[in-house]
Amino acid sequence: MLLNKRISIFDFLKTIKFDLIFIGSYSILVGYMDQYGFLSKISIPIAITGVFGTAVALLLGFRTNQAYERWWEARIIWGAIVNDSRTLVRQCVSFFARGQGGYQKMVKEMTDRQVIWCYALGESLRKLPFSTRVKVYSESYGIKAFNIPNALLSQHSETLLKAKEIGMVNDFQQVQIDSTIARLCDSMGKCERIKNTVFPKAHSLLIHLIIYVFATMLPFGLDDKNIAVEIAITFIIPVIFIAIEKTSILMQDPFENDPLDTPMTDLAETIEINIKQMIGKTDVPVKKEPTDYYIL
Amino acid sequence: MLLNKRISIFDFLKTIKFDLIFIGSYSILVGYMDQYGFLSKISIPIAITGVFGTAVALLLGFRTNQAYERWWEARIIWGAIVNDSRTLVRQCVSFFARGQGGYQKMVKEMTDRQVIWCYALGESLRKLPFSTRVKVYSESYGIKAFNIPNALLSQHSETLLKAKEIGMVNDFQQVQIDSTIARLCDSMGKCERIKNTVFPKAHSLLIHLIIYVFATMLPFGLDDKNIAVEIAITFIIPVIFIAIEKTSILMQDPFENDPLDTPMTDLAETIEINIKQMIGKTDVPVKKEPTDYYIL
Amino acid sequence: MLLNKRISIFDFLKTIKFDLIFIGSYSILVGYMDQYGFLSKISIPIAITGVFGTAVALLLGFRTNQAYERWWEARIIWGAIVNDSRTLVRQCVSFFARGQGGYQKMVKEMTDRQVIWCYALGESLRKLPFSTRVKVYSESYGIKAFNIPNALLSQHSETLLKAKEIGMVNDFQQVQIDSTIARLCDSMGKCERIKNTVFPKAHSLLIHLIIYVFATMLPFGLDDKNIAVEIAITFIIPVIFIAIEKTSILMQDPFENDPLDTPMTDLAETIEINIKQMIGKTDVPVKKEPTDYYIL
Amino acid sequence: MLLNKRISIFDFLKTIKFDLIFIGSYSILVGYMDQYGFLSKISIPIAITGVFGTAVALLLGFRTNQAYERWWEARIIWGAIVNDSRTLVRQCVSFFARGQGGYQKMVKEMTDRQVIWCYALGESLRKLPFSTRVKVYSESYGIKAFNIPNALLSQHSETLLKAKEIGMVNDFQQVQIDSTIARLCDSMGKCERIKNTVFPKAHSLLIHLIIYVFATMLPFGLDDKNIAVEIAITFIIPVIFIAIEKTSILMQDPFENDPLDTPMTDLAETIEINIKQMIGKTDVPVKKEPTDYYIL
Amino acid sequence: MLLNKRISIFDFLKTIKFDLIFIGSYSILVGYMDQYGFLSKISIPIAITGVFGTAVALLLGFRTNQAYERWWEARIIWGAIVNDSRTLVRQCVSFFARGQGGYQKMVKEMTDRQVIWCYALGESLRKLPFSTRVKVYSESYGIKAFNIPNALLSQHSETLLKAKEIGMVNDFQQVQIDSTIARLCDSMGKCERIKNTVFPKAHSLLIHLIIYVFATMLPFGLDDKNIAVEIAITFIIPVIFIAIEKTSILMQDPFENDPLDTPMTDLAETIEINIKQMIGKTDVPVKKEPTDYYIL
Repeated sequence: MLLNKRISIFDFLKTIKFDLIFIGSYSILVGYMDQYGFLSKISIPIAITGVFGTAVALLLGFRTNQAYERWWEARIIWGAIVNDSRTLVRQCVSFFARGQGGYQKMVKEMTDRQVIWCYALGESLRKLPFSTRVKVYSESYGIKAFNIPNALLSQHSETLLKAKEIGMVNDFQQVQIDSTIARLCDSMGKCERIKNTVFPKAHSLLIHLIIYVFATMLPFGLDDKNIAVEIAITFIIPVIFIAIEKTSILMQDPFENDPLDTPMTDLAETIEINIKQMIGKTDVPVKKEPTDYYIL
Repeated sequence: MLLNKRISIFDFLKTIKFDLIFIGSYSILVGYMDQYGFLSKISIPIAITGVFGTAVALLLGFRTNQAYERWWEARIIWGAIVNDSRTLVRQCVSFFARGQGGYQKMVKEMTDRQVIWCYALGESLRKLPFSTRVKVYSESYGIKAFNIPNALLSQHSETLLKAKEIGMVNDFQQVQIDSTIARLCDSMGKCERIKNTVFPKAHSLLIHLIIYVFATMLPFGLDDKNIAVEIAITFIIPVIFIAIEKTSILMQDPFENDPLDTPMTDLAETIEINIKQMIGKTDVPVKKEPTDYYIL
Repeated sequence: MLLNKRISIFDFLKTIKFDLIFIGSYSILVGYMDQYGFLSKISIPIAITGVFGTAVALLLGFRTNQAYERWWEARIIWGAIVNDSRTLVRQCVSFFARGQGGYQKMVKEMTDRQVIWCYALGESLRKLPFSTRVKVYSESYGIKAFNIPNALLSQHSETLLKAKEIGMVNDFQQVQIDSTIARLCDSMGKCERIKNTVFPKAHSLLIHLIIYVFATMLPFGLDDKNIAVEIAITFIIPVIFIAIEKTSILMQDPFENDPLDTPMTDLAETIEINIKQMIGKTDVPVKKEPTDYYIL
Repeated sequence: MLLNKRISIFDFLKTIKFDLIFIGSYSILVGYMDQYGFLSKISIPIAITGVFGTAVALLLGFRTNQAYERWWEARIIWGAIVNDSRTLVRQCVSFFARGQGGYQKMVKEMTDRQVIWCYALGESLRKLPFSTRVKVYSESYGIKAFNIPNALLSQHSETLLKAKEIGMVNDFQQVQIDSTIARLCDSMGKCERIKNTVFPKAHSLLIHLIIYVFATMLPFGLDDKNIAVEIAITFIIPVIFIAIEKTSILMQDPFENDPLDTPMTDLAETIEINIKQMIGKTDVPVKKEPTDYYIL
Repeated sequence: MLLNKRISIFDFLKTIKFDLIFIGSYSILVGYMDQYGFLSKISIPIAITGVFGTAVALLLGFRTNQAYERWWEARIIWGAIVNDSRTLVRQCVSFFARGQGGYQKMVKEMTDRQVIWCYALGESLRKLPFSTRVKVYSESYGIKAFNIPNALLSQHSETLLKAKEIGMVNDFQQVQIDSTIARLCDSMGKCERIKNTVFPKAHSLLIHLIIYVFATMLPFGLDDKNIAVEIAITFIIPVIFIAIEKTSILMQDPFENDPLDTPMTDLAETIEINIKQMIGKTDVPVKKEPTDYYIL
């Protein structure tokens, strides 16, 4: 996730450097050809270029909007994970019967597993190898399923069942905590949906294509009096459109390893701190001051 | 569903080949007529063509947006099916009383039926004949209803009732699992709604019509100096509009057998693997590496 | 509801015939006047007409979108009615205690009333006189309320209460079924809301007005060289705008008796077939193949 | 709420009469000045006016959309109030134990209070003095809170508590009815939110301002050949923009006393009729045929 | 939050004074250069400026919309906090058993803590130091967690547990009240999500950039006849775009200390008055008449 700091404009320009070079070369080439070469006889009425530009702008607006929606939805889902993690631990703390011996152990077991679940979900969404912490945990519990986070939720239910069998929660409370686990399961599935559904490729291709068609038409609509102005316009306008498109591409996949990503590691840390403090622990991790212009 | 691979642009062009041929012929014809024939006297102010083009772009934006919404909603519904399938099995595993003899059998029964339900729903939405697996299952259980998936949900409730009668679940747990079944029933109905509600035909027709009206107006607004440019513009701009329209048409019906479809078979397989591993089975299907640029 | 068949374009044109005649006459009249008469001195810069046309297009886009939303919401509500009808019957079937004598009778009573409720709701939304079936039912049960569907839901609760009094359902199940009835009550109220809230009249009027203002301005922006082209443009563009507006008007009221209506009768039949099969009945109605291009 | 009747266009024009007079005078003045006076030397390229007009149209579109959303949300909330009022009474009727003496009285108490609540909420949202009926009720029950509707909901809970204490409802039913009261509480809070959150003033001002800037620029882009046409255009286009803006302003505050208001009094009457008939009362109010083109 | 009063336009202009000065200087400079200097040879076709302006308008529309959504969502969340605070207290009042001694004390404890929670949440969202009242409360209860509002919710659960242990609420009621606390926890998390997710920086930068690119292109598209008009246009149009952008920037972060903020302090006061009156207290704070044009 981007932080509210001054980001380097060069970092951004680097992501579109091939487009910059290509459009730059093209605009200079066409600029000279249009002035001196055989292209000087071709002209396209500027009104047509205008209509086309409006269509490009509209489609970019649509694209930007959909990408934003995906990015924002990802953030909403992880917000819900934060809330439900807290609710889960709060319910365990206040529902489990305290008189009995295993109270501390059982609440700790749920809390620890919930922390691991958050990290495991983030890592599996990013298709990263699991961190040592998650690996150690899942090996020590003999979890072998393909979907580790889902297996962890099953273990939550197992613990809950054990709690019920020894009379630590009643029927009613079991069902209430189960609802919280079901919501966590929902959030997990929603993340997987966004991860696994690529933005319609045909749309992406078409929009990329028409920006280049527009860039190609543009110089022929300009009058040929001033070559510097012509090259500047032929360069700047398409580059801005490409930049807008690029921003959308970065936003539309909110679970990759890039600066516009959902800050899952950071959120998992926040959850860890919050819920460990809720069960009275003091050995919570300390958040480091971010050194970069974004956090993951 | 499209995969994040390079798709062949020719596959896409094939879907609009008739429009390509028609607009191509038209643009060449009008290009020559406008140059040499009696059409050379007709001219339409380019600003009018511009306004009209803006209207076309706006309506295409509306169309694209609605098609995208339908496609995305379909994906959300199947995401909910994934989640609720997992939740259903997790609830069965942890709610059913283990002491009794039938525990394993009953959990397996629910899991197997849920797997069949997913495949049956996908196949009935695609209006395909049921696969052998679904047919064998529904015949062995004597299901004769028109709506097989709905009948399977009724059987879920029957099993649940049996479980309650032999004391395997209590009132409270029965109702909680019933809520999960009710959500599956909702998802099923939502799929049927999208499948059975055609996108307003009048809108589709109007948008198709005005693209062609625009294509007809376009050449008369261009000046007649360079026939090659005129033909190129008369060809490319309408083709791009048609391509955008076609993409929407492919997306607006997310339960057909085309590349932009919801990957229901693939999702059903994921569900099968996930929920079979949740009840400790190891004979889960192995997902094949997709060989095409899309999965169903 | 429209079916996915070829609809007759003439059916659609008939709905806007007065506009067609009016705009046709106007465009011919102005075309001649502008050529030969005193109007030839008036000219409006085409760019102004352009801006105005863009505003018209934007407002039509807004209009189309809102109308589509209303139409789609109506469809979502009836989808929920389908789901909740199935859930209601499934719950009755599996919650009511079977040992007792009245089981069959009570389940049938709920199912029959639910079928009647669907037809009654559809008919009262369309402000049609109730069909014989509904009339016979409500007379035989002595229902005299102004709002028949609401009274039917009250009777559902009465039956449920009776079931509880004779020990056929427990407290828990009563409340669960009551939630389903509450959702049906919600859907009913949502339909009434859409039916009773007219689309803001001032908006409709303004949009209609500005299309005509645009149609009036249009010919004065065209050059006067070719009268046939002028008349054609003055005719076609406003007609397309009117057609888009008309489609919105048809869609914005989804509970009238027109082709773009929500197919409530058809959905009620589907519900009847589904839920009668759920209680093991075989005398379900057979759906007729639709003979028209739409179903109600 | 507007009814689906022919409304007088003059009623609408009256609401923007100051803008009409101002813009009318301005357009005549500028028309003459531009023709004969010192302004004749000023000209603004019509394309700039065009861009600006497009921006105005886009912002008006945004404005209209947000206003519509607020208006529609208000309608949805009151629709939910209708539904939950019916559900509340249906639950009281079927949950309260009938054997006991106080059944009739208690159901009537809840129903009467719910009716009063609807009127009181409507009146407090409109910032009107409470009607005699509400005043008499709240005085007879000694309610002194600032927020009368909220106090009425507290009394609902009190009655419910009493019902539980005398064994008229069980724990389960108390909680279920409490959920319905909580939903009514939500709807009340949502109405207050819309009422108390003014549409961002800066936006309103900016949009109003740029319409006038546009109106000021407009005549200088027109050629000066025909003064009547110039005055007409300078008058009509801004007036239409102002009219669209005015409609939005009327819609954005859906709880005032104007024709585009949410018809809270009418809805409260509908609720009264519905829920009184549900408890078997026959002295329901008769709805008067509306005499005006709108209802409140 | 802005009040529905006349706000000083100067307050608003002050927030964009640097842009005003910069654009003002630029437009005067370019105006003179274009008239007399070497820039007079550069001209950009106004249609290109037009297309670009349309793109700017569209992106501003997108920006405005997203900012509005964030602002409105913040308002919805706080509306939910108002509702759930009332519901929480209403449930405590009517669920807690009255016979026992601690009734008054326990209800008061919940109510007081809920009031503190609202103030604490508002203050921590604004990153303000906690007010004396909150500080005194949290010190007297020994709360040391980093997240004070979350710790207060944990204490709610503790009180509830105590209530259950002494038989003041039953299982059922405990779970129902716990659901209300879970909703408050959700609202808290949603606020944190909006607070911690900065609006995509790349978008903000791009939009700011293209407004300035547009401002730079603008004068070269104007004809050079009248320098005053040129300077006026070069100044006014970009300033309006900047003003629209600024309004969005103010709205997109709804938990800062600015006039377009969510009025959290005011809402917390409303909650305090409402819920204290619900438990029969009369020492409620009196709302002061706001003296400024906005409230916090």
